[in-house]
Amino acid sequence: MDARTWSLVFDLLGVFFFAVSGCLLAVQKNFDIVGSLMLGSLTGLGGGVIRDLVLGRFPNSFAEPVYLAPPVLAAAVVYFLMPAVQKARRTLLTFDAAGLALFCITGTVTALSYGVNPVSAALLGTVTAIGGGLMRDTVANVRPGLFDRHDLYAIPAMVGAGAVAALWPLGLYSTAAGVVVAVVVFAFRILALRLRWRVPLAASSRHRSGGEAPARE
Amino acid sequence: MDARTWSLVFDLLGVFFFAVSGCLLAVQKNFDIVGSLMLGSLTGLGGGVIRDLVLGRFPNSFAEPVYLAPPVLAAAVVYFLMPAVQKARRTLLTFDAAGLALFCITGTVTALSYGVNPVSAALLGTVTAIGGGLMRDTVANVRPGLFDRHDLYAIPAMVGAGAVAALWPLGLYSTAAGVVVAVVVFAFRILALRLRWRVPLAASSRHRSGGEAPARE
Amino acid sequence: MDARTWSLVFDLLGVFFFAVSGCLLAVQKNFDIVGSLMLGSLTGLGGGVIRDLVLGRFPNSFAEPVYLAPPVLAAAVVYFLMPAVQKARRTLLTFDAAGLALFCITGTVTALSYGVNPVSAALLGTVTAIGGGLMRDTVANVRPGLFDRHDLYAIPAMVGAGAVAALWPLGLYSTAAGVVVAVVVFAFRILALRLRWRVPLAASSRHRSGGEAPARE
Repeated sequence: MDARTWSLVFDLLGVFFFAVSGCLLAVQKNFDIVGSLMLGSLTGLGGGVIRDLVLGRFPNSFAEPVYLAPPVLAAAVVYFLMPAVQKARRTLLTFDAAGLALFCITGTVTALSYGVNPVSAALLGTVTAIGGGLMRDTVANVRPGLFDRHDLYAIPAMVGAGAVAALWPLGLYSTAAGVVVAVVVFAFRILALRLRWRVPLAASSRHRSGGEAPARE
Repeated sequence: MDARTWSLVFDLLGVFFFAVSGCLLAVQKNFDIVGSLMLGSLTGLGGGVIRDLVLGRFPNSFAEPVYLAPPVLAAAVVYFLMPAVQKARRTLLTFDAAGLALFCITGTVTALSYGVNPVSAALLGTVTAIGGGLMRDTVANVRPGLFDRHDLYAIPAMVGAGAVAALWPLGLYSTAAGVVVAVVVFAFRILALRLRWRVPLAASSRHRSGGEAPARE
Repeated sequence: MDARTWSLVFDLLGVFFFAVSGCLLAVQKNFDIVGSLMLGSLTGLGGGVIRDLVLGRFPNSFAEPVYLAPPVLAAAVVYFLMPAVQKARRTLLTFDAAGLALFCITGTVTALSYGVNPVSAALLGTVTAIGGGLMRDTVANVRPGLFDRHDLYAIPAMVGAGAVAALWPLGLYSTAAGVVVAVVVFAFRILALRLRWRVPLAASSRHRSGGEAPARE
């Protein structure tokens, strides 16, 4: 397969992984199968639609009906193969991490192919990667994983998008390089989850001494 | 009136119906009259703006100031004629169903007029129909009707958009056909609400045996 | 500096003020520093991205990397200089008001420069001004300030955008006029907050007599 075909495969895989995460959240929230398909579609296709609107092109998800297959497949897989509900959260986060790893690559590559400068392309790739999950969590009314302090979410996506944007102008980007970056991003994200890597809170803690505790949700 | 004028009338009516649903939710949430106008405008105009951004054209709602009239009228009607609060939910759902029935037609017709293929046009029509209500519920922080399992929401919109997309290439679409499809979609949606038609949950129930009950909101 | 440079300065200042409001909400919600940067970026850049997508141009925030500086600066300022948490809400509202005052000007001017008619330009300027804050509150799962009945939010933005749209076709708009309008909008918004100016509720109260009290959130 040539680079273009591989890129489509990665993109469809990313859509599928994110769609599964949306369908799993639908299970947790007790939605029906249609709500599952809707939330899966929004999660899988949302980031790419934002990317394409910013690039000023007719979104892939609407232009090519093949993009509808992964969400349908995801809703069916979750319906028939859903493991016990107790494990849904961990499974959801794993699929979400896989989608994140692929979309930060394909989003950045798409932007670079459109002649966007590397800094903006990395930014747009990051937005593509985190956009679908942010919409998933917002419409389903749960605290977005992006803001959850028990793990790193945006940083792995930034690293992956930045790596692609750095390799591309040097002529070093290839499908193989993309796979390596995706694996690194996925591993980074999963390790951050398992080992509970953290970054500091939004305000330096010394300012809080004597103040009231910040409100928990 | 010619087909083009009828299409505008249907679109403005759809904006009005959805705007009323937004203003009624504003009443339920105890917003003020400006918040009511804002939520009504978002609900009435949101789906069409997404449709037009995807189609790459300057959104109708911004291009033609006449589109501002229905939300203003809706906020005024709800302010002066609002029935007792107890009945707000049912009234809201009825107006929402009317907006859904009209927008799945006008959204699909607009996309087809732009040369979009029938499958994508039906998809875009469905997004137009469900987008405004999804934004209404998301920003007002209520569980989106789209995900509510006590009724069918997306399916009537898909049926209406699919019918238009099937009739159009055959040259069988007309304003009269659009009215018939809209009435069928509206009746389908209202019957689904009244008779509590349901589809299965997002996960096959046999997987839940022995597991914990899924969390209710 | 010429008018074009001043316009960029106002826009970047508006991004900074809104970004600070996003970072302050991140502190209140106990997000980490990356979540703070993300929420600040969404708040600061979100309104302008919607404006640019409607205008059909590549969004400034992606085209010009300088737009990334204000959110980074805002996250750093909030991290190091954040006052005691008790005062965060008032500080947040003040920065939000400053962003609102600047964006209703720059959003309207941008639309007018693109040849949009004055009514649509004022509408788009208002959307630019209130869009970022609406997204901030929606994704962070708090009741949007836009719908809060203890203060006026959309009206000052409409007044500012309307003033610019009225002055422009008469050839009376200048950078100085923009500063005056921004100061008036800011003062209007702050006075509305301090003096708790209100407009009527979404439904005329006489309809509620005998009905149940509307549900509070």
